[in-house]
Amino acid sequence: MHKVVILGGGFGGLYTAQALRRAPADVTMIDRRNFHLFQPLLYQVATGSLSPGEIASPLRAILHKQAHTRVLLGKAVDLDPERRRLILSDEEIDYDTLVVSTGSKTSYFGHDEWASIAPGLKTIEDATRIRHKILFGFEAAEREPDPEKRRAWLTFVVVGAGPTGVELAGALGEIARDTLKNEFRSIRPRDARILLLDGSPRVLPPYPEALSHAAEKLLIGLGVRARNNVKVIGIDADGVNLQTHQGVERIQAKTVIWAAGVRATSFGKVLENRCGASLDRTGRVMVEPDLTVHGHPYIFVIGDLANLQQDGRTLPGVAPVAMQQGRYVAKAIQARIYNKGVKPFRYFDKGSLAVIGRAAAVAHVRKVDLHGFIAWIVWLFVHLMYIVEFENRVLVFIQWGFQYLTFNRGARLITGELEGAQPPGRVRDRQ
Amino acid sequence: MHKVVILGGGFGGLYTAQALRRAPADVTMIDRRNFHLFQPLLYQVATGSLSPGEIASPLRAILHKQAHTRVLLGKAVDLDPERRRLILSDEEIDYDTLVVSTGSKTSYFGHDEWASIAPGLKTIEDATRIRHKILFGFEAAEREPDPEKRRAWLTFVVVGAGPTGVELAGALGEIARDTLKNEFRSIRPRDARILLLDGSPRVLPPYPEALSHAAEKLLIGLGVRARNNVKVIGIDADGVNLQTHQGVERIQAKTVIWAAGVRATSFGKVLENRCGASLDRTGRVMVEPDLTVHGHPYIFVIGDLANLQQDGRTLPGVAPVAMQQGRYVAKAIQARIYNKGVKPFRYFDKGSLAVIGRAAAVAHVRKVDLHGFIAWIVWLFVHLMYIVEFENRVLVFIQWGFQYLTFNRGARLITGELEGAQPPGRVRDRQ
Repeated sequence: MHKVVILGGGFGGLYTAQALRRAPADVTMIDRRNFHLFQPLLYQVATGSLSPGEIASPLRAILHKQAHTRVLLGKAVDLDPERRRLILSDEEIDYDTLVVSTGSKTSYFGHDEWASIAPGLKTIEDATRIRHKILFGFEAAEREPDPEKRRAWLTFVVVGAGPTGVELAGALGEIARDTLKNEFRSIRPRDARILLLDGSPRVLPPYPEALSHAAEKLLIGLGVRARNNVKVIGIDADGVNLQTHQGVERIQAKTVIWAAGVRATSFGKVLENRCGASLDRTGRVMVEPDLTVHGHPYIFVIGDLANLQQDGRTLPGVAPVAMQQGRYVAKAIQARIYNKGVKPFRYFDKGSLAVIGRAAAVAHVRKVDLHGFIAWIVWLFVHLMYIVEFENRVLVFIQWGFQYLTFNRGARLITGELEGAQPPGRVRDRQ
Repeated sequence: MHKVVILGGGFGGLYTAQALRRAPADVTMIDRRNFHLFQPLLYQVATGSLSPGEIASPLRAILHKQAHTRVLLGKAVDLDPERRRLILSDEEIDYDTLVVSTGSKTSYFGHDEWASIAPGLKTIEDATRIRHKILFGFEAAEREPDPEKRRAWLTFVVVGAGPTGVELAGALGEIARDTLKNEFRSIRPRDARILLLDGSPRVLPPYPEALSHAAEKLLIGLGVRARNNVKVIGIDADGVNLQTHQGVERIQAKTVIWAAGVRATSFGKVLENRCGASLDRTGRVMVEPDLTVHGHPYIFVIGDLANLQQDGRTLPGVAPVAMQQGRYVAKAIQARIYNKGVKPFRYFDKGSLAVIGRAAAVAHVRKVDLHGFIAWIVWLFVHLMYIVEFENRVLVFIQWGFQYLTFNRGARLITGELEGAQPPGRVRDRQ
């Protein structure tokens, strides 16, 4: 049987595997993690609304009914395209068709030293680390007698005003205004300063201008201050240095979250070295209209790792693109097996959605712009619908219901240790 | 106002604080963690049934309506009983009455070097670590071509056949038999060998003998082999050495979980040094009939840290004892404020319950012994009832429902890194 190897169990890889359900092919799904992560809700783990298990589903559980599909926990390190062989860290696997969907990771634009201070939001571990930092900030402020230091603990900086940054900042605003209300005795959580920094002239740069302004207004209502046209030039354990039109500025802040950029994962480099694939500036693989690597019709690259131009623009690194590409690749593989042709891939853009907070979102659907409550209902519905397991859908729905009614966030746990350059804080540093 | 300082937000401390709701007292709750953990269900996090957030509740959220109660994240390091002052790592706090309920921690009986290989089950981090080890064992076995090594990956050893050990072993049995069924292609998960080791002649030693035998039968039904009368004399990354009646025996096993013992937390030592408290063999503080430290009527010690004799036996370190002691102390404090007397504490034993698996539990309620389905229903009901937050009660109930119907465990995530002596395994060691 035709052997399909899929590298990566994100939206692209998982949708490929699922769409190959009835194909006469042996499918092997390889991922370094044993679960599919519903990335669009990861910020809700980082802000204490949901638990990791509720937005992650074991790949084996999702695919166990597909008898011709196997799941392997492993890491791909190299490729031999002539022999059609994928090289894992401890094994080699033959393929007839390879689908690479390893996605993207946080990029600090050459400042990797910021990673230990300002976590990005790509993995479950990132999310629990951010949760730890946010909640610990309030705890440390409660115990800090010095007003200046207290202010630094109560200053939260989100770098990058794309959808993730806006979602994080909005959730932070709600935590400070609603969730933690009446829970502290020495501080007022709503005194927290939440700053959303971006180099662009407005938040949500890829959205229509009117929606950016609507989003900014909604953020102000939550106590978030969006500072546009500023460039972060330094991050350390005590704050951020900014380049503004007026010059260099210092912000004292104990909590900095990085939502400013991603770059392709490193398997793109392997494709460059072994297949002569061309990479773009952020490491993505330039793919053919049928999502294959030039000169290698049996290697597909999809999702965040692929750079495909459509109508003169690169498709964005969002879940719907990966899902549609996954389904397309499954179709293309089956067409080949039956010796049929297939049209080039074309992304059908159903629209963009970004949530800011309770009853507050912006949506750009076809030619229609929505904001406020209606956009939020659309957002809720769409996200619930795409969560992979029915059980998780129920769990998330219930928690959203509770949160809507009580303003509480049930998963507000400070767990694990903070490592790296982050100072452990007053409460912990003498332990 | 009378200042009550409570050290530790487990069952003892939390029930004290809640029972002081209407007392004319300033209450300060100090804990190193920001949440109350519902310990009795921690094994379900370790075995992928529940997520951490579902059995943990932020202390601030629980207590925020009590305006005279404050919560501090901090660690107590010393005590000055003359000045009635508790010394934290970074601050000193005055009290009129001190309630110490810092609980117990895993004890390796002098073999602390085993801790990095065989995690105990006391914290959220322990639970996710055990979950990682268990799931990774099956993943590594799926990729291991050598039959002997594969067998070691598929051998799971639980040391200690008390309630926690029995619960873990039973859940492991269900994972191997039901949850993972059809999910692997190279191994049969039900071939996993699950061993439950104990030095006593039977499992659940404190239970009536008939129930121990019933439990053992239920365990056998799940594929768990209980080996009694054996003593663990060595644990390393590849297995366990046992002392049996026949001599020394070696078991090759990549996953070892420690459920064999606990000892008191270190604040007992502080009470010994500063108040002349006497400690028992496991570090527990011998308390007066009113739960105070001898000669220190303003220092109460409750829960797992306290050793109280009742009818010639030490009360067990279980949640109901801590809860009742917490309520008693709150009453005693209020009685003093109003210059009233209070009778000595007396534990009312409602019975013991241990769950083994699906529709399988044993219960010893008053003079009645139950096992099987009825005991399981009692167990379900009691545990749901005591979960602190209503939201978590709903979430847990729903997940149990799904698990009952589908045999799936939704929170089967391999997260975090395994540190220490545990070899990273084939899949990871060359990365």
